[in-house]
Amino acid sequence: MQTQQQRRNWKLIIQQFDRAIGKKGVIRRKEELLTYECDGLASYRQRPALVVLPKTTEEVAAAVKICHDNDIPWVARGAGTGLSGGALPVEDCVLIVTARMNRILKVDLDNQQVVVQPGVINNWVTQTVSGAGFYYAPDPSSQIICSIGGNVAENSGGVHCLKYGVTTNHVLGVKVVVPDGSVVDFGGQIPEMPGYDLMGVFVGSEGTLGIATEITLRILKTPEAICVLLADFETIEAAGAAVAGVISAGIIPAGMEIMDNLSINAVEDVVATGCYPRDAGAILLVELDGLQVEVAAGKKRVAKICKEMGARSLTTASDSETRLKLWKGRKAAFAAAGHMSPNYFVQDGVIPRTKLAGVLKEIEALSERSGYAIANVFHAGDGNLHPLILYDESVEGAFEEVEKVGGEILTLCVQAGGSISGEHGIGADKNCYMPQMFNEVDLETMQYVREAFNEKGLANPGKLFPTPRTCGEAANAQKIAQMKSAQLF
Amino acid sequence: MQTQQQRRNWKLIIQQFDRAIGKKGVIRRKEELLTYECDGLASYRQRPALVVLPKTTEEVAAAVKICHDNDIPWVARGAGTGLSGGALPVEDCVLIVTARMNRILKVDLDNQQVVVQPGVINNWVTQTVSGAGFYYAPDPSSQIICSIGGNVAENSGGVHCLKYGVTTNHVLGVKVVVPDGSVVDFGGQIPEMPGYDLMGVFVGSEGTLGIATEITLRILKTPEAICVLLADFETIEAAGAAVAGVISAGIIPAGMEIMDNLSINAVEDVVATGCYPRDAGAILLVELDGLQVEVAAGKKRVAKICKEMGARSLTTASDSETRLKLWKGRKAAFAAAGHMSPNYFVQDGVIPRTKLAGVLKEIEALSERSGYAIANVFHAGDGNLHPLILYDESVEGAFEEVEKVGGEILTLCVQAGGSISGEHGIGADKNCYMPQMFNEVDLETMQYVREAFNEKGLANPGKLFPTPRTCGEAANAQKIAQMKSAQLF
Repeated sequence: MQTQQQRRNWKLIIQQFDRAIGKKGVIRRKEELLTYECDGLASYRQRPALVVLPKTTEEVAAAVKICHDNDIPWVARGAGTGLSGGALPVEDCVLIVTARMNRILKVDLDNQQVVVQPGVINNWVTQTVSGAGFYYAPDPSSQIICSIGGNVAENSGGVHCLKYGVTTNHVLGVKVVVPDGSVVDFGGQIPEMPGYDLMGVFVGSEGTLGIATEITLRILKTPEAICVLLADFETIEAAGAAVAGVISAGIIPAGMEIMDNLSINAVEDVVATGCYPRDAGAILLVELDGLQVEVAAGKKRVAKICKEMGARSLTTASDSETRLKLWKGRKAAFAAAGHMSPNYFVQDGVIPRTKLAGVLKEIEALSERSGYAIANVFHAGDGNLHPLILYDESVEGAFEEVEKVGGEILTLCVQAGGSISGEHGIGADKNCYMPQMFNEVDLETMQYVREAFNEKGLANPGKLFPTPRTCGEAANAQKIAQMKSAQLF
Repeated sequence: MQTQQQRRNWKLIIQQFDRAIGKKGVIRRKEELLTYECDGLASYRQRPALVVLPKTTEEVAAAVKICHDNDIPWVARGAGTGLSGGALPVEDCVLIVTARMNRILKVDLDNQQVVVQPGVINNWVTQTVSGAGFYYAPDPSSQIICSIGGNVAENSGGVHCLKYGVTTNHVLGVKVVVPDGSVVDFGGQIPEMPGYDLMGVFVGSEGTLGIATEITLRILKTPEAICVLLADFETIEAAGAAVAGVISAGIIPAGMEIMDNLSINAVEDVVATGCYPRDAGAILLVELDGLQVEVAAGKKRVAKICKEMGARSLTTASDSETRLKLWKGRKAAFAAAGHMSPNYFVQDGVIPRTKLAGVLKEIEALSERSGYAIANVFHAGDGNLHPLILYDESVEGAFEEVEKVGGEILTLCVQAGGSISGEHGIGADKNCYMPQMFNEVDLETMQYVREAFNEKGLANPGKLFPTPRTCGEAANAQKIAQMKSAQLF
């Protein structure tokens, strides 16, 4: 029996896209489509039927309208760096890629705002305004390649989200093409608007409610001073206690990161910072920013707390060169993991800060039980864990076992009152875990909202929420067989 | 013809509520119902059919379910201090009052969280945790009488929202009874959760999506030091320029307030602070908080900026007694307005900070044109204006004219790229202005979301969004005739 998809007259549909966007903006050749068959979660692959590259809001609206009128599922894609398969095509879909929507539309320094198209790269925003003494705070590790549109879809975080919050805290307004092709504005120039906060719903909705075509970002004044402290501890628990001590002293560092012994040694093997003691149970990196006097006072207090919690040595850096040196190992942590083991699986979960010590112990136990080494590198200040499970995919069944270990870590996070994702999103990767966090009524309520925007279910179908097809048992086996470890970070 | 409402068998319905909540929690006598016929927007009045006072989530769910099953509209009410008629009953409705849900359920200092029932008074939260060195940041003027549930519904602000944000930035999670009587959880213990940010939609939804029965609040460390600066200027433009200067220097004060000459004199007439120079065009109050060193440095920089912008004199206060003295006039501003004129109408609008000078000039011109004096007292740092239009209601037609002037101020705000409400909400008061801010597609999208939660339209009908009935021309005349000036602040 022919499906509806097979009956579609793609020739006529492609003509409509050619007219709406121009032939150069429509990719139809199979070999060219290959580029788009996965995002940063490279273990899932699906070739789209067609890729379109609009340049304006009007072209996006026209593309979405063609999909709507012809019942074609569509997926939005920014730079394709996402780690949860949010931009993974679905079968027989149109992929709407924002790569050509890369203009900075307005820089308003007086109101500390920048308006951008979604394809603008995260880092460009800071580059554009840094001369005038401003910067854009959210800084995912991929910030030199990821796009603002993707950041909005995934509500991206970064090292500095401890103090400054994640993407949703820095978006003031979005122009959105919703799935029926209409153009709506959520939020605006000022932070608080009456009516429902649909901008808040849109940010982090992972492409299921529409596609942003103009984004108004809040920019911040570049801090007068920045200082980084590196403290090393006998145990990871002591480092965790120092984190709790800093926070409960009322200090909010710009960032606070922990790396365990396994990660320290991997990093020293690869990038040889020379700053991270190989025999430390864990190191803690604390970045403070603000006024000179504030940073100077904070530095003293953080150092005192670290010493009280048993820090063996302390290094501080106020000039940018030494600061970069102290951060170098942390930034290289994922890359270094690739040198420890043929493959690794990075998990992303959140726990309340006060549960750090307990959950880390459980992860250690899990590592011993399963026989897989787990390196811990994480945003300690906000409890966002990134355990790296090391394995060798050439060993039969290893990936399936590792995926199970990853799932058990998520369960630990949920049991501790945390979350199954801190910053990588749910996408196609974790939708089956959503029922661990949300009960049926909660999920049903989200579905109602999805349907309010996306009545026909054409925008990024199968993502974010569990579906019987992807989360059923039979489908699960097939999915696991398809999956390999993620190689891009 | 009998309406459905008239056909309802209230006797049977009341029996259901008696069983669900207990007789003491059901108010049915007409004279007792009178207390509930308005909220802080006293110009609108409507007696509810019944008032119920549940004590638990289960009782709220039972009450909402009874309404759902019997197609009875219902309105939630906290302390009833709202200024936009959000808790104004609608015809033949059940009013669900949270006054007996006044327990603080959990204090978790380690995770800086407090879980409360919705009837808990704003100020109690800080009182509960201040001994341990914490406080709850959002501080509406009504904070000693308003409830957290109402704050959540209206997304309340306050003097300190410049630095710390409004209610939505301090709510981590809510347990909500949605209009079909189900209980759902939005948000949680940790700030970032996957899935749609329905907590963000719920906060500020003005009772149209459900009723919060448990609220998890984020508490902050009490700052080490607080300092208040009072600067006086020849003109309000100069004070506005000082505000812009402070912000663009990268300083974010805890609060930044401007009062104009008319307000200064009214306040000095009534509370005689002795600190506010009667001949000043405007005074600027700046509160700085943080570490000792940070506040000391900020104080110097703010003083320098004020002097550069033409401040005639500067007073600073670091001890709490002098600080209170400097704030005293600002806190008494609305009360003092009542002494300037038999009646006054307070407007609440927002403009981008950089448009302050221009919009204030327009308001001055409007005052001259209309012949009504307008006093300006406002949260200058975030552009939240509170113009007080002075009038005498005993003069025939005065209120109607003043309402028109108030509407023109809102139009000015919208034209400047701002908002028709900063912190008082839309409720029954401003829903007819919503089309000035949002186009049809924007409002339609919000309606879809409303319907996703509130399919039968029973939760706070007629509020927040324009309806033909309340915003049609014929109805408008009737509404205006019913309206009088608000007397409660």
